[in-house]
Amino acid sequence: MPAAPPFPETLAIVGVGLLGGSIGLAIRERGLARRVIGIGRNPARLAAAQDAGVIDEFSTDIRAAANADLTILCTPVDRIAADAEQVAAAIRPGALITDVGSVKGTICRAVEKSSAGPRFIGSHPLAGSEQQGWEHAAATLFEGRVCVLTPTESSREAEIARLEQFWKGLGLRTVRMTPEQHDETLALTSHLPHLAASALALLLPEAARPFAATGFRDTTRIAAGDPDLWTPIFLANAAGVTPQIDRLLDVLRRLRTVIEEGDGAALQELLAAARASRQSLDG
Amino acid sequence: MPAAPPFPETLAIVGVGLLGGSIGLAIRERGLARRVIGIGRNPARLAAAQDAGVIDEFSTDIRAAANADLTILCTPVDRIAADAEQVAAAIRPGALITDVGSVKGTICRAVEKSSAGPRFIGSHPLAGSEQQGWEHAAATLFEGRVCVLTPTESSREAEIARLEQFWKGLGLRTVRMTPEQHDETLALTSHLPHLAASALALLLPEAARPFAATGFRDTTRIAAGDPDLWTPIFLANAAGVTPQIDRLLDVLRRLRTVIEEGDGAALQELLAAARASRQSLDG
Repeated sequence: MPAAPPFPETLAIVGVGLLGGSIGLAIRERGLARRVIGIGRNPARLAAAQDAGVIDEFSTDIRAAANADLTILCTPVDRIAADAEQVAAAIRPGALITDVGSVKGTICRAVEKSSAGPRFIGSHPLAGSEQQGWEHAAATLFEGRVCVLTPTESSREAEIARLEQFWKGLGLRTVRMTPEQHDETLALTSHLPHLAASALALLLPEAARPFAATGFRDTTRIAAGDPDLWTPIFLANAAGVTPQIDRLLDVLRRLRTVIEEGDGAALQELLAAARASRQSLDG
Repeated sequence: MPAAPPFPETLAIVGVGLLGGSIGLAIRERGLARRVIGIGRNPARLAAAQDAGVIDEFSTDIRAAANADLTILCTPVDRIAADAEQVAAAIRPGALITDVGSVKGTICRAVEKSSAGPRFIGSHPLAGSEQQGWEHAAATLFEGRVCVLTPTESSREAEIARLEQFWKGLGLRTVRMTPEQHDETLALTSHLPHLAASALALLLPEAARPFAATGFRDTTRIAAGDPDLWTPIFLANAAGVTPQIDRLLDVLRRLRTVIEEGDGAALQELLAAARASRQSLDG
């Protein structure tokens, strides 16, 4: 028997895009809350999301989160801290705020210093796509994925546990990290691949496009992600990302050297280690 | 009405793996030849491929290609030139040899200087997968893909056209390039992404694996390719690959600089250009 939903009444989702929309769909499909309020800027898009069954009702005023037991901020990472403050000013005692931002250090430290501090626990469900908009949302987006929670010194254990229950209800496994551990890890597993994919895409001239087959397409797929979302992620996690770029440069230079020197044994060893690493992800 | 098959009698496939097996399946499914001979080293695997309907008969002696009107070499790139010589010594006048190798310069120039020269025209169907073995073969692997043909000065127009017809019969579009043009282009569209994917995979420590989500997985998928196949590709195309690695290093350093400097406008511009490039591949 599944555990009772930890926030059974009202949930607010600020930013009804791919992630926010998928959360709405999953909550409604799984019956995890009585109503889901979608909050955003564009009433026409919100009305369409409501018609599509992604949310129950909507508002363009962030204070509509006042009645929510849990507010999930799905806005770009450079807006989350400010949104958290606004929501914190409106909600009832005992209500909680979280987010889905891809960086945590700058956000959690900014929120911690603000009046929203005691009400906010950072989350990052490791799910997404290069697509944008709730039209691409899917209730199954989170199934089997990992959600990193980044509580801080001021977080209360009971509230962390309650938030973990919420994400588990959507089908995710939860892991706790400090905001800094999160950013260091995701710099490698998410932000660096995005830069590598973008760099490859930047190198492709129009004339070579017909010769970009599945390998190129897979390797660069995430480069199609929204620059409006990714620019603030890289800037907010510059301290985590730049050392990872340096490591990537080192490995690429090493590969270049063994290729130029015709050192087949060393090259084969590197490629075999890379394969073993990649295959371990499917194990 | 489809054109008559250009090699309607006997085809030989040397190396019955993912590509060779897919060619066999496609030929048999489309009725493009009366019989397909699979040639390889492992009789048990060849017998299983025969049982699975990938080939009609098999041999472990490359001279079994003697009766083939077209022999397709699907062996690793460092074996193709030698295999071509052996096949050329066995086949009838008028019979043709091609390959599916991912590099063309070293192969075509070596074959050109050998007795196989007049019988060989290089091919590279841009299809594949990180998987190995005919068990993963699919008759549909080539549909809608591009096949690059790399005729040389000694190639005869009628034979080039006949080979083009063959690949078109498998559902590919054909493009002619010099072997050198091919290698320069594929260094960017195929070999460089493989190195970038491998480099990223090499950087991933075991502890970070749970945090490698779809973005990391897609970007590194091709790193699971067989090092035995890829090592000779990089070595044979070192001259094409190393300048592309240098270009990648330059772009990554540029991205690093704008991130470190917090230059959001420049970063956004680069990410937007990368997205436009990537999206053009799906257009």
